[in-house]
Amino acid sequence: MQRLIVNPKQLKADQIWLTVDQQHYLYRVLRLGVGDRFLALDGQGHQWVAALTATVGVATVTGADEQPAVTRLTGTTPTVTLAVALPKGSGFDDIVRQATELGVTVLQPLITERTLQRPSANKLERWRRIAAEATEQSERRLMPAVKAPVGWSQYLQQANSGQRWLCVARRTAPHLLTLAQQNSTQEMLIATGPEGGWADAEINAAVEAGFQLASLGSHILRAVTAPLAALAIVMAVADQDR
Amino acid sequence: MQRLIVNPKQLKADQIWLTVDQQHYLYRVLRLGVGDRFLALDGQGHQWVAALTATVGVATVTGADEQPAVTRLTGTTPTVTLAVALPKGSGFDDIVRQATELGVTVLQPLITERTLQRPSANKLERWRRIAAEATEQSERRLMPAVKAPVGWSQYLQQANSGQRWLCVARRTAPHLLTLAQQNSTQEMLIATGPEGGWADAEINAAVEAGFQLASLGSHILRAVTAPLAALAIVMAVADQDR
Repeated sequence: MQRLIVNPKQLKADQIWLTVDQQHYLYRVLRLGVGDRFLALDGQGHQWVAALTATVGVATVTGADEQPAVTRLTGTTPTVTLAVALPKGSGFDDIVRQATELGVTVLQPLITERTLQRPSANKLERWRRIAAEATEQSERRLMPAVKAPVGWSQYLQQANSGQRWLCVARRTAPHLLTLAQQNSTQEMLIATGPEGGWADAEINAAVEAGFQLASLGSHILRAVTAPLAALAIVMAVADQDR
Repeated sequence: MQRLIVNPKQLKADQIWLTVDQQHYLYRVLRLGVGDRFLALDGQGHQWVAALTATVGVATVTGADEQPAVTRLTGTTPTVTLAVALPKGSGFDDIVRQATELGVTVLQPLITERTLQRPSANKLERWRRIAAEATEQSERRLMPAVKAPVGWSQYLQQANSGQRWLCVARRTAPHLLTLAQQNSTQEMLIATGPEGGWADAEINAAVEAGFQLASLGSHILRAVTAPLAALAIVMAVADQDR
């Protein structure tokens, strides 16, 4: 069944009021008609089976949750925040899409000393749209939260709890896989740097704030590849433990 | 120092005869001039420090290997083949680039029952160029081999030794991380499917040929994301073991 992310506010009694974009997607792209069903998700773990009605723009909830409860929603669910120095160009679009598939919980774009991109305001909206689409396509129930970009020093003040790893290249550090295997907390944060790498002062500030340095192996990964490799490793350990 | 992949045939005595593309790259893009040095790699594990001479298109080898021997070149080096059902569009370009960064040894594009793309002849040349560039940028000494696309059944006849894993979704299979940790061979092959998934007959044929089914976790990954997640996991285990 086709999946569609809806805002909880769109749900009134047992009716879903579709946005113009959603109408376009259901009627034009998917070519659904009256009576056709789809799966509506609020991106926060709830989902409903809905059917299009004769009234344009309105669907009716025809059934509750059709799918089994997802392990990810239980008390032992790991939450993974990926804090990523914005790569140049449209690189962050790919990161949002692929990190959503891989099961990230929060995506935090970072402005660091060597970050070249200064994102425009409409980028955030674009990233959130990509996250919603990828959530639908990857059959996830939870949509990751994409945060507004912040500077590194400001972020260090916010990100002050849980297990936090800073991925570094060309430095001696334990492999992220080893650290993830030793980790027993459910709240993890992984930070990856920009094309030019972290500045020494940025690394020092992170260590002082409680971050642990982590290696992604002997190769030099680009700023768009490192966050995905890191996430794949951490999620594999979490999936294995379940 | 800037890195450049050269064909061993370009090396005559202690001189490197540069191609037109390489001249463009060194003179125009990097703006190097007479006497400026760069690192020439043959992609097979050898490298030389070279300097541009006053003769256009000719560089002189000024030193032998400047860098320490790379662990990857020792007898215990794992070799990882990634056999990937060709995704639609230019998705394989990204796979070549990112898999090279992550340390793949061989990239084998596959034509499967549900593969939509029928690659044109010049695609292979393009992929090899991307692999060379990514080798330079990621500071690898070994360039991965990018093979010409083959059909799945034909490939199963060739790929008949070593540890071979077939990544499947929506099936019960051990996690690839678990399998990689149990693996004691140095020769590994990971196959990932197309957008529409493997056909049942393709999975059965692979199992009959000695492939082991592997899971990449509870999420549904796209055809461009699955090979990179799989490679990140296997390389992390290999890096950790060293």
